[in-house]
Order: sequence, then C-alpha cells, then structure tokens
Amino acid sequence: MSQLLGAASYTDSSDDETSPRDKQQKNSKGSSDFCVKNIKQAEFGRREIEIAEQEMPALMALRKRAQGEKPLAGAKIVGCTHITAQTAVLMETLGALGAQCRWAACNIYSTLNEVAAALAESGFPVFAWKGESEDDFWWCIDRCVNVEGWQPNMILDDGGDLTHWIYKKYPNMFKKIKGIVEESVTGVHRLYQLSKAGKLCVPAMNVNDSVTKQKFDNLYCCRESILDGLKRTTDMMFGGKQVVVCGYGEVGKGCCAALKAMGSIVYVTEIDPICALQACMDGFRLVKLNEVIRQVDIVITCTGNKNVVTREHLDRMKNSCIVCNMGHSNTEIDVASLRTPELTWERVRSQVDHVIWPDGKRIVLLAEGRLLNLSCSTVPTFVLSITATTQALALIELYNAPEGRYKQDVYLLPKKMDEYVASLHLPTFDAHLTELTDEQAKYLGLNKNGPFKPNYYRY
Amino acid sequence: MSQLLGAASYTDSSDDETSPRDKQQKNSKGSSDFCVKNIKQAEFGRREIEIAEQEMPALMALRKRAQGEKPLAGAKIVGCTHITAQTAVLMETLGALGAQCRWAACNIYSTLNEVAAALAESGFPVFAWKGESEDDFWWCIDRCVNVEGWQPNMILDDGGDLTHWIYKKYPNMFKKIKGIVEESVTGVHRLYQLSKAGKLCVPAMNVNDSVTKQKFDNLYCCRESILDGLKRTTDMMFGGKQVVVCGYGEVGKGCCAALKAMGSIVYVTEIDPICALQACMDGFRLVKLNEVIRQVDIVITCTGNKNVVTREHLDRMKNSCIVCNMGHSNTEIDVASLRTPELTWERVRSQVDHVIWPDGKRIVLLAEGRLLNLSCSTVPTFVLSITATTQALALIELYNAPEGRYKQDVYLLPKKMDEYVASLHLPTFDAHLTELTDEQAKYLGLNKNGPFKPNYYRY
Amino acid sequence: MSQLLGAASYTDSSDDETSPRDKQQKNSKGSSDFCVKNIKQAEFGRREIEIAEQEMPALMALRKRAQGEKPLAGAKIVGCTHITAQTAVLMETLGALGAQCRWAACNIYSTLNEVAAALAESGFPVFAWKGESEDDFWWCIDRCVNVEGWQPNMILDDGGDLTHWIYKKYPNMFKKIKGIVEESVTGVHRLYQLSKAGKLCVPAMNVNDSVTKQKFDNLYCCRESILDGLKRTTDMMFGGKQVVVCGYGEVGKGCCAALKAMGSIVYVTEIDPICALQACMDGFRLVKLNEVIRQVDIVITCTGNKNVVTREHLDRMKNSCIVCNMGHSNTEIDVASLRTPELTWERVRSQVDHVIWPDGKRIVLLAEGRLLNLSCSTVPTFVLSITATTQALALIELYNAPEGRYKQDVYLLPKKMDEYVASLHLPTFDAHLTELTDEQAKYLGLNKNGPFKPNYYRY
Amino acid sequence: MSQLLGAASYTDSSDDETSPRDKQQKNSKGSSDFCVKNIKQAEFGRREIEIAEQEMPALMALRKRAQGEKPLAGAKIVGCTHITAQTAVLMETLGALGAQCRWAACNIYSTLNEVAAALAESGFPVFAWKGESEDDFWWCIDRCVNVEGWQPNMILDDGGDLTHWIYKKYPNMFKKIKGIVEESVTGVHRLYQLSKAGKLCVPAMNVNDSVTKQKFDNLYCCRESILDGLKRTTDMMFGGKQVVVCGYGEVGKGCCAALKAMGSIVYVTEIDPICALQACMDGFRLVKLNEVIRQVDIVITCTGNKNVVTREHLDRMKNSCIVCNMGHSNTEIDVASLRTPELTWERVRSQVDHVIWPDGKRIVLLAEGRLLNLSCSTVPTFVLSITATTQALALIELYNAPEGRYKQDVYLLPKKMDEYVASLHLPTFDAHLTELTDEQAKYLGLNKNGPFKPNYYRY
Repeated sequence: MSQLLGAASYTDSSDDETSPRDKQQKNSKGSSDFCVKNIKQAEFGRREIEIAEQEMPALMALRKRAQGEKPLAGAKIVGCTHITAQTAVLMETLGALGAQCRWAACNIYSTLNEVAAALAESGFPVFAWKGESEDDFWWCIDRCVNVEGWQPNMILDDGGDLTHWIYKKYPNMFKKIKGIVEESVTGVHRLYQLSKAGKLCVPAMNVNDSVTKQKFDNLYCCRESILDGLKRTTDMMFGGKQVVVCGYGEVGKGCCAALKAMGSIVYVTEIDPICALQACMDGFRLVKLNEVIRQVDIVITCTGNKNVVTREHLDRMKNSCIVCNMGHSNTEIDVASLRTPELTWERVRSQVDHVIWPDGKRIVLLAEGRLLNLSCSTVPTFVLSITATTQALALIELYNAPEGRYKQDVYLLPKKMDEYVASLHLPTFDAHLTELTDEQAKYLGLNKNGPFKPNYYRY
Repeated sequence: MSQLLGAASYTDSSDDETSPRDKQQKNSKGSSDFCVKNIKQAEFGRREIEIAEQEMPALMALRKRAQGEKPLAGAKIVGCTHITAQTAVLMETLGALGAQCRWAACNIYSTLNEVAAALAESGFPVFAWKGESEDDFWWCIDRCVNVEGWQPNMILDDGGDLTHWIYKKYPNMFKKIKGIVEESVTGVHRLYQLSKAGKLCVPAMNVNDSVTKQKFDNLYCCRESILDGLKRTTDMMFGGKQVVVCGYGEVGKGCCAALKAMGSIVYVTEIDPICALQACMDGFRLVKLNEVIRQVDIVITCTGNKNVVTREHLDRMKNSCIVCNMGHSNTEIDVASLRTPELTWERVRSQVDHVIWPDGKRIVLLAEGRLLNLSCSTVPTFVLSITATTQALALIELYNAPEGRYKQDVYLLPKKMDEYVASLHLPTFDAHLTELTDEQAKYLGLNKNGPFKPNYYRY
Repeated sequence: MSQLLGAASYTDSSDDETSPRDKQQKNSKGSSDFCVKNIKQAEFGRREIEIAEQEMPALMALRKRAQGEKPLAGAKIVGCTHITAQTAVLMETLGALGAQCRWAACNIYSTLNEVAAALAESGFPVFAWKGESEDDFWWCIDRCVNVEGWQPNMILDDGGDLTHWIYKKYPNMFKKIKGIVEESVTGVHRLYQLSKAGKLCVPAMNVNDSVTKQKFDNLYCCRESILDGLKRTTDMMFGGKQVVVCGYGEVGKGCCAALKAMGSIVYVTEIDPICALQACMDGFRLVKLNEVIRQVDIVITCTGNKNVVTREHLDRMKNSCIVCNMGHSNTEIDVASLRTPELTWERVRSQVDHVIWPDGKRIVLLAEGRLLNLSCSTVPTFVLSITATTQALALIELYNAPEGRYKQDVYLLPKKMDEYVASLHLPTFDAHLTELTDEQAKYLGLNKNGPFKPNYYRY
Repeated sequence: MSQLLGAASYTDSSDDETSPRDKQQKNSKGSSDFCVKNIKQAEFGRREIEIAEQEMPALMALRKRAQGEKPLAGAKIVGCTHITAQTAVLMETLGALGAQCRWAACNIYSTLNEVAAALAESGFPVFAWKGESEDDFWWCIDRCVNVEGWQPNMILDDGGDLTHWIYKKYPNMFKKIKGIVEESVTGVHRLYQLSKAGKLCVPAMNVNDSVTKQKFDNLYCCRESILDGLKRTTDMMFGGKQVVVCGYGEVGKGCCAALKAMGSIVYVTEIDPICALQACMDGFRLVKLNEVIRQVDIVITCTGNKNVVTREHLDRMKNSCIVCNMGHSNTEIDVASLRTPELTWERVRSQVDHVIWPDGKRIVLLAEGRLLNLSCSTVPTFVLSITATTQALALIELYNAPEGRYKQDVYLLPKKMDEYVASLHLPTFDAHLTELTDEQAKYLGLNKNGPFKPNYYRY
C-alpha cells in the first residue's frame, strides 16, 4: 500500500448509521449503479478533485494528448484501490482516454466518502465507503465484477484482493482479460508466486518496481516524512540526537540523509554487505543493534523484516527512547512482547504511547509499531501523481500491446514508459531536458526518444 | 579503463634509450621469460607492492582463505591490464590461488617499470614497459599468448585488445578457454557486440557493471576526485562558484554532491528524464547548457557522449571559465574546434592550458579535455582493491563453474559474489554486519548467506 | 518573545464564562493570593510540570547545586513572562534557590490555565489566565507589584511591559530594585533607549543576546521549525522546490540550510554585504527579490524589517506560491495590502489562507503573515530550557553582584555564565568536555574554568 | 601569518650564490634604492602581478574610485609582509592612492624573488629575497626605516617584527606615526600586551579580527584546504574514515563540515562548552581524545593550544593513522616527543613522514606538525584579496581619521569598512545586494549605507 489519506472527511454526519447497502440512491442523471455513503456529498468531493487536478499535471497532460486518439477506447477496467481525490483524477483520466471503469476500495477505512459520491454523481459505478465491514468489502468488489452485460478486460489492483476474487469466483473471466496492473508490494509478491506456480493466466505489470515510483515512494518521500512524522508526534529536536536506523535500503537511505542533515548522529545496521558498504561511504557507523541500543535516543526500523527490534532490545533502551517503524509492515518491532503485565501503557497523544517499565523507564512507541509515514505524516500529491501516471501508462501499454509482446508472466514497466512518466513531471520544476543531436544519438547507439539506459542500470 | 597510475616512477634513468626488446635480461633465478625496462629496478618495485598490500586487505584475505583449496589450480591466465603495484598484488594473489599468469600492459604509457621488474624478478612472465610503441604493444601481447608448450585457459582483459588479438590471430585457442573477464566499458561494449553478432565463443563476465565497482569507481570516487582535480590544477575556491555539470549519472551525481557540499551553485543538464527528475529532487536546477553558459565559472562534462561542449558554447563562456571532463572519453569537449589560428594556446601548468580569444578572453582547459580524474588526481588504493577483488572472484567463478552454468554470452557477476566483494572490504571501516536469524531468513524467503536482493534491485 | 505554547489546554470547559477576577478561589492551604482560571485544574498542570522537569535537566541541576547556598535568599522577584510548564519549572527553581516570586503573563493568550492553577496551588501568587482583556492584563501586572508589605527587588521581564508599568506607576520602587533581566528583542530595545536617554535607573541584563540563547532560538531552532511549519500547514514536498529566503541572519541561515538539505533550490536576499558574502560562500545565489519572484514556489521572510514582501511582489508571484514569515514581527509581509475588494480570501485550514486573484491565481498565505514558527510549529523544550537557565543565572548574577560591578546600563550576560549555561546542557548529548592542563591554561593565558573567549568572539 | 606562497619561483638560478647585499644593482630608471635577488627577473614578476590583478577586483576598484581623491596622499608607509604577487597588487594600489612605500619581508623564506624584482623595477624600494639569514632579515627591515630624508608615518605589519624594531631602535619615530595596521594573530597579541602595559604610543588597528577576514581565512578557507592538504599528501579516500578534530572554532567548524560532507565520521574535542554545544547540534559526537584515539584514521588539531596530541596519544593510535595540524602554531602536536631512538622516521614524500614504532606500527605525520594548510595546500587569491583590501582600508581610515577618533589603543576595523570590504567582493559572485527604502531604514533605525549590525553581532 503506498497511498495515504491526507485530507480528513469534512462532511460526514456521524449520526447516519444506515448501511449504504440498504439505501436507495440515485445520481442526478437517474443512475443507481453505485453504492456510496451519501450521494449528496458529491459537491464537496468535486471540489477536492478539482484541487487535486491542479497538482497532478501529468494526468491532465495525458488527457490533453489523448484527445484525438483515445488509446483506451473499448477498455473495460475494473479497479480496486484507495478511493481518494487523487484516484478520482486517475479514474476520470482513464475515462477521458476512452475506458469504462467500475471501482471498489482496497481498504475498508481509506475511502473518502465525498470523493466516492462525486464519482458516482459523474456516472462512475463506485462501490465503496469509509468503514466497510469485511463482508461489505467483498460485496463491493463483487458488484464491480459480477455485472449483467459487462465484462472487464483490464484489472487495476492494489494489494491483489480483486485479482484474488476473480481467480476464485470467476476464473473464466480471464479469457477476456488482457492484463493486470498491480501496484503494491504484497500484490506483486502474490503475482510472482502465481507465476512461479504456473498459474498466472494473463500478463501482469509490476508497477511497484518502476524506477520513478520506487525513488519517490521510498527515497525522496521518506527523506521528508521521517522528519515530519517524528515532529508531529513528539515535537523533539533533531540536533545532537543519537539515532540508529535499521536497514539501509531506499527508505533507510532517505531517513539517514534527512536526520544527518538536521544534525543527528546516525548509526546504521544492515544484513546486506553492499548496502552496508554504502552506509560506510555515506558517513554512517555500521553497527549491530546491540552495540548502540543503550545510548541512542531514537530507533527507526526500515528493513521489511520481522522482529528486528526485540523485547530484549526494548529492555535495554534508555529512558525516553523513541521507537518507530518506517519499513513496510507492522512486524519489525516486536510490539506484542510489550503487552505484558509488568509494563504500563499510557496513551499520551494520538499515535503516541508511553510504555513504562517497573523502574519508571519510559519508551515512546509511535503508531504502535505500524508505519510512521502512513500514520503520522502525509504523502505529497506529487508522489501520488507519479504513481497514478505510472498506472495509467501501464494500462495503456498492456491494453494496446500487440499479440505476443507479453506472455503470462510478471513484467516491469518498459523503461521508455518509466522515462515518459518522469518527463511528464519535469515541468513542475521548470526543468529543461536536453535533446540528443542525430550525431550524438548515433555515437551512443541510442534512439533520440529513449530508452536511454540498459535495463540493469541502477540510477 | 578505471585504474590510474598514481605514483610516479622513481628510478627511471631518462638516458637509457635502448629498447627493452633489444636487451638481454635475466632475473636472479636465471629466467629470461619476460621483457621489462630494467630488471635491476625490482627492489624498488617490491617496496611499492608491499605498501599496496597493506591497503588491499581483501586480496590478502583471499590468499589466506585459499591456502588449502587453490581454487585456481590449473588455471592458465593471460592478462592485459595497467601494470601497477595494485595489479601486482592481484597477480600474486592469483598465483597464490594456484594460477599461472602471463601479462602484458593495456596502455603504452601506464606501466610502472619498477613494478614490472619486481614481478619479473618473482618469476612472472611480464611483457611491458612505459613508453611502448604501437608495434611494441602488440608484440608484448603476442609474447604472452604465443608460447611454446603453454596455452591460456582464462583471459583477464581491460579494454578488449587482448581478446581481439586472440580472435584475430589464434581463434583456435578459444577451444581451451573457459572464459573472459573484462573490466572496461569499451571492452564490455565489444563483447556485447560479439554476442549480438553470434560470434562470442566462450562465456564472458562483465565486471565493469558489478554494483560495488560501479558505485566506487563512479559515485564515491568522483565525489572526491572532482575536488582534488580542480584544486591541484587551478587552486580555485569552490565556495560561491557557479558550476554546470553535464550528465547526472553516477559520475555526475558524485560531482554535484561534492561541489554543492563545498558551497558551489550547481546546474545540471540531462537527456534522460529519470536522471533529470533525480537532479531536481536532489536540489539542482535542470537547464540546457545554453541557458547558463554565459554565467558559469566551471563546466564539467560527465556524459559519455560526444561534442557536449561545442565551439559555440566555448565562444560564449565568460573570461576565466574552467572547462574539464570527468566522463569516460576525450570526446565530450570539442577540443579540436579550439585548434584554430585566431585562438592562442598558453600552457600555464602541467595539464592546464589557457585558450585565449582575440579579445583577450581566456578559457582554462584542463587535461586538454581528457579525463580529469585520470590526469589530475589519483585513484585511492581502496577503489582499486575493490576492482581487483572483483576480477579475482570473476576468474574463480568462471574457472570453476560447472558445465552449462554459463553459455556463450556476457554475464554480470553473480550477486552473491558482488556481496562477497563488499563484505571483504567492511573490516576497513570496522563495520559490523548483522546476521539474519533462521526465523527472519525464513520470513524473508532468503538464504542467510545471501544473495539478499533481486537482480533488478537498484541500490 | 521567544517562547511558545506547545501543548493545548486539556481541561478548559468552554462554558465557564465567569471572569477569574470575579471568582472567589482558595488553594488547599487556604491562600487566595492569586488569580487564575480554575484552581481545580491544578492536578493536570502539575503533571505537565513534572514532564517538563524531565526535559530541563539544567534547571534541576541548579536546584541540586544550590541546596546549601540559596543564592537567591532574600530576593523578591516580580516576573512577567509566558506562563507555561517550562516557566513553572523556572519559577519553582527560583523558589528553591531562595527567592520569593510574584508573576503575571506577558501575553493575553499564552497562559496555560492548568499550569497557572498548579503554581497557585503550590503557593505562588500567579495572576494570569488565557484570554485576558487589555484591562485584565494591566490589572494582573499591578496585582504582582502593588502589594501591601512586599516590594520587589528584582524584575524578570519578557517584552518590557512590567518594567514600563513600574516606571510609570511606581518609580520609587526602583530604589530597592537591584536589576532587570529582560529576554525579548522588544524589551531589550526599550532598555537601550532608556539607557541612551539617561533614564535607566538600575542595571539591566540583556539575556536575549547571550550566545547560547541566540544560536538555539534562531539558528538551530529555525533549522527545524521551518520544515515543520511548512509541512504541517501545506503537506508540500521540499525536493526540487524553488525558495527565496529574505534575510541571511541566524534565522535565515537556519532556514536556508534546512531547505537546501531537503533538496530545495534556495535564493537569498540581503541588505548587509557581510551576510550577503556568507550566503554566497554557503552556496546560495544572492538576488534581489524582483529577480526571482515570478519563478519561486515559496517566499520566506527572516529580516526583522517591514514591507519586505509588498503587494507588487504578491501580484507577480506564480499560482500556488506559498508566503510565510519567520522573522520577529508581523510586518515583513504587507498583508494589509491584500485586504482589497478584488481579492478573495479563503480559509482552507487553520493558519492557511488562499488569497485569490481575479484571474484565479492563488497565493497560499500562512499564519496571516505572523510568525510561522510560533503559530504553526512548536519550540522544543530543550530550547526553552536554555532560555530559562540563562534567565535564572542572570538573576543570580545581578542579585549577588558586588556594589559597583554593574552601573545603570544594559549588560550582556558575562561570558562565563553563558558558558555555564552551555555546560549544563551538555549531559543531554552525553558530551564529554576536555579540561585544560595547567600548562595549557598558562600557555593560552586562560583560567582553566573559563571564560575561554574574548568578548568579540563570534562563534 | 595568513598568506601563503602559492606559486613556485620560476627563474631562480640555483647557482647564483652571491648575497644580494653584496650586489650592485640598478633598475632601468637608474635607481638603486632596493635590494633584491636579481633585478633582471622583473619581467617574470610583472606577469605574475598582472595575473593576480585579474583576481583581485576589489583592489582594482579601489584604485579606480580613488583616481580623483588620493586618500593616501602624503602617506609614507613602511611595510613588512610576505612578498608575493598579491602583496605587490596591494603595494601598487597604495601607491595609486597617493602613498609612498618602503617594504621588507616578514618571513625569510616566503619572498618571491621575481615579484620583488618587478616591484624594484617599478620604483618601489623593496628589501627582500628568498632565503635571507636572520641578520639579513633585520638588515632589510632597517633599510626600510632608517633612511636619510624619509620618515614613515604609517606602519603595515604582519607578525609585529617591524613594529618591534622601531620600538627598540627608533622610538622617536612614533611621534610622526599616525597608526599601525597589524594582520597576524601574533602581532595583534603583542599589541594588546603593549596596550595593557600602557606602552602603546599610537593607535593600532587589529585587522586580523575583522569579520570578513576571519570567516574567509578560517571557516571558508579551511573547509576547502583540509581536503586539499590531505589529498595532496596522502591520496586517501575520505568516505567512511573516522576522524577526530580537536577544537571547534572557525577552523574546526570548517574542517568538520568538509569531512562530514565527504562521508567521513567525525568526532570533536573541545574545552569551551559553548563551542561544544555547537558541535553537538551540528551532528558531531563530543568526546575526549582518549575515548577515540585507538579507533580513528585521522587526527586533526585546530586549537591554537599546545600539546593537544601527546606522545601518549601517539603511542595508542592505530597503524596508518594520519596526524596533522590546522591550528595556528606548530605546538599542537608534541612532535618533539617523537624524536626518540626507538622510533624510526621515514620521509615518504615531501611533507609526509612515517614514524615507525618498534612493532612496525606507522603513524603518518604531515608537515612535521606545522600548519597543513600553509605547507600542503594553497590559499586562493580570493582570500588574499579580502585580506589585502582590509589592510588598505585600515590604512586609509587611520591616516585620515580626525584627531581624537583613535587613541593609543588597539581597535577593530570599523564595521562599516568591514561591510565595504565585503561589498567590493560581491561582484565576483554576480551577487545583487538589496537596498533599504527610506521607510525601512527609518523603521530599523539604520543608515541606508550601513553599518547594519551592532558591534556584538556574531554573524
């Protein structure tokens, strides 16, 4: 999961307890092919979508360029993602490119009801609301897929639940499906497993590992969100603080760079000797966690691993030590080990717990060990724009690819499209790209329009 | 080409004009199977080798670990590289691992005569001296290959000339050759072309693109050598200077980071939108060269392209502008265009020319547009150690690989070996790697000893 | 004014409309010599004070060291500052050192009612609540000063209002007053004016300009709060943004360093050529505001000057440009000029207004041009600890100074005490100071215990 | 001493052994009122001076502005400084401003003979050559001062030797002398001692402590020269190295910032708690030398103190540790303690010694513990330009000051002139200063032309 749910919901009346499934609602054109919290909130949602449009120039540029061609004409896309203003801009872009869409939410809490209402009002069959039950969740997905007289030919998934549902309930549908675009680490993992098992029956595109998405979701975004998340929760001063960062992948690199720049003294732990050597060359002491656990003021996990911070470590931390997780699961800190009778938990702020030892020592645990950057900071629209543009291009590519270009396998986004996503975001920075001359292109053996690098290039 | 020829030659007597090919020399054991400038310089060379050994702990560790096994027993390696103290440590390591070696120089200027003498004295058939003619160059290579009763079964090449010579003169030799290890960009390019053309008849390993080598040769090394090269040649102050760096690959990233840290204001040009977006996020204005050419104090090329800086650009630069090249050829600056009658050249220091326009404007051209980091700074032994260790491991891998693991194609170093090279260099930094627990390894689906990343991981 | 009011008030019942002046309240010991919102909130306030004590080790150390001596025995201090948990720790420290205190608030909004209640409960005569009227404000000050049978002999002021009141109403009181300690820029300015006019009748200590306070309040604190303030209000991404910072004093230096580190491209404007040259050497383009106003994404003022950003500048900014003030008044941006009929104001979040031009262009104005770091971020307790410790030491110094050491003038804190404040904060960082040997002290001509620098030293 | 002697001497014939004092030389105008190595080298020296002029625009601007006024008309300046191309530009500027000058060298090794010849050829009475004896040194000074029919009325000194000589030999001369301008730390120290003792009989200006000079000579210059000095002597790689920097004044701050930026891990030692706290906030671990001496790769002293690195420390360093001094004397490292029989010294390069312990451990000692930045790197002309401009303005100020403005005391350069020096160097960076409006100047209580800061401002 890579999106976040920045803006709060403005208009929810907390007293409306009726399940959306039990309501009879129609949009202003008379359609009732949707299920949202309250269609009357559409106007508020539309305003949010318009604001988001201003900050997603790449999608708006796609709309403009596609005015004549309609590269998605005939596409019937079923989607399952977070439903936010940014997603709405994506959906309406897909529509402008010629596609028909039906959509459900990939998370039971993350839907912005007003945005869902605005989409429904505009004629998108959306089935989602904030606070769905588990049963609601699958019901919504089913309503997207199981429609009289309409069958999807493209899947856009975030987490793999939609894909899983079709595999389980409507395997025959894959006969008409041209491809799956999957964005999340988890969903991609599932697809690779299907592929290994020989069960993947359509081409799938792993957009999670495109260069631009990776660098922005991880390195650049975490460089900022680690500072933001720590400040909002603890108001701490970074200068002079001793910090240990577990893991020196893109996320760890971003965290370390930011904290070093703010005057913290940063230690790094790693299991991979290559990343370890990078940490050394970037000016960080490479240690085992045990060596510094008694002296540090902050512990940050960025490993993707489990039990990186154990109860034993927590027992040895000094008073007021802050512990948080920037990796991609809630397993990195063994929080369960802190749920023992001798320790007292005190909630001091939203997302901030003091865990108190019998001798009075307090550990400051953020977001109960879940992702700090999802829970305690926001993701800039610019990052979401890159993700959404990548998804749109992946859909176009898979939908239009000539027979045989893609087999029943998992693919990375073609480098040229990755480059195209990047190029659509350069105007934001008033950045001016240099073009190769014919002579130079020939000298380098490159096409003037790219791709510019071999596939193994590391950036 | 990635090595450099740090130390000057201490003992060359400039008055010895006799060609080594015309000399009769024997080492102390009576062998004359070598051709070097002066065997009597061996003692000086040995001292240089001993100093280098102290700074190449990874190779020394390899020697120690291999004491029992001799993984290169039976290997007959013919090599063609720069001949420096660091190369000598590599060759003697290969010897300690069980290999027989014969060696020539890959560059007519780069041989350290004392080191060549020391190797010859130790019994290595070395054919190389500083200042070879073109004819000497091929003669030396031939003497390595064309030997009565000895036939190579491994090739270690830097630039592809040795490989080319065998292809041309002794194609039958490839029947016994198990593989080629190639280090340079140029040599690798040639191998890929052979492979595409279906003419590559043995497996080849591209060590140029291993992670550790790339990051050290380019990012980390250039981050330091750009400052060193500019200071040694011009004694300029970096603070407040306006600099344009052409190209934001690893070399460009290193140059930009260093100059920004020293207080320069840095502009970047790029052709690749992904690298361009990285430059933006790293805080550099992305421009076309024309936009800033009138105002900058320094122009640095790092593109690998040709004619990036043209006469037109040079005409528009301001007085005292410094122009230099950190890319990998001498083509980036169109130096030829400056050889016109109306411009005056004035050599003000070694490697520094003033090119003077009729109106008195002076451009400061460094190293005549050749590589600044090769000509005007030194490469730390630590970087050379990484390269040499990578070469040694690649030779071991290819030599010992079971039938069928490698076909007649170009391969990247297996990730596990790349990680091994890195791990051998961690002790230098007193860096302590964390080990996965069994439980964690299982959770991640990894072997505890690596490899730790998928092949497409970007670091 | 340098403090801030981090924590919100937890227990205020908004429906209690009775003025504290009309209430009859007693603390548990029966005293009614105080006036606070609600004495029953004392327990909540005490908890806040205890938390603050943990983060103000320097004051706690002062308490411990002074256990025998009571350097403020006999001191009768009247104070007028923000009333927060940190101030409470200061007041209770002054009490522990032997002083009697009476206290009012220096700002009608900034009092934390619970903390005021806790102080009253402990026996401190405190006259302050959140939301005083102008009349209340002076009434509270008067109640501190105008007491039967008690006359202050020391003043601790923040802003100069207390000092001004005594000058105006009770000038005779100065006969017994040993000195004034003043913390704010404004208050210090007033004192220098009194001194110039020959009207200052007691020694005054300018603690605003002590080294530690200046560096922490300005450079180190702003380096963090500029990022925090921008993120909390706008959720923007810093990478690649173009920013102009007006003013390169300590505040400007902090802002520039932080934004550069986060990947922004920063321009600087200055009127002082020395600071301008520093900006150049630190890697910032020095421009006039007009040169870049059309292209920047953010404008930050840090000058202390007025009308630095004019309506003309605002008219020329691009859509979505963010404008904010980090200087020390609300005059730097000409906000008044934006209150014209053709512009529409839209409040989009707390502290964030969109000002909309007729053509749809929006400027994002933060905190209506007031101080961003006071309105939209928090000041770490560590910084407040330095300020409070400095105040305590200044009071001790003036109170105990032998006759004649200080005349009727404004003094900077003696360097030795400035150094002492710093030394009390080093343990926080587990920092180990080196001591001079006798031989070294002699060589340098220094006392081993300091002061270590001449007065003109710049740090 | 703050200057350095960048360029080597090109034309010295080593075989000319005659003492200049024994030679009969005349310049082309027939004058023999000078004593230099060889008047025939004048042409080479003139070329060096012309190159320096191009890089000292501030002095050239002074010449231009003074064309009408001649603010030094009537001044008779006797000077004693390093004699380099940059000094020559200063002297000729003083001449252009109306002064008569006579000059000697302040160091027996630092004179560039060609430049001295060029000055003599132009009519400046210069008495200086490279390699003077102690006796020559004082003879030259005396020849500047003790002249028939000419008596100095201004002194420009660097180190205080000239001032000392006049005090000792010609005390009556001070009756006509209007002031002393002194540049070095040592000379300034002597003047303050004279002043304290009541023996200073004319006003003196301490230009060493002007803001611009301090920041450039120390912070900005050392930030670059520490890297340069280490690279040129040892070719080491900075990334990942552990470094301890002793002293966190301006020099230490510069060294730490540079090394941190290059990826070194930096520890700091300090005696002053204020500087110590700054080190903490800037992200450096504050330690005692003993705590890290066994683990560091480099030790750098920047204290101005003596015996900061003792034999005991040296005994405990690890093999290959590099030791060097960036402070302002050769006392910081106890080099004398290394001159014992059990240690072997090996000179491995110019300015680089290996000191070898009986167990084979080697310490790499740079410049025998003298100043690294003077011995092993160069000082950019830009820094020398700031120094020279400051000297010129100080001479103008003292010479033209109305009776009574300066007493027999040591003064800092008036802030307005410090600002003027800075402003003269801004065009180098194409930097555009903002001017106060009348309204703003009034609001701030400042003159529009400065000075802009109170004297205690720290920058």
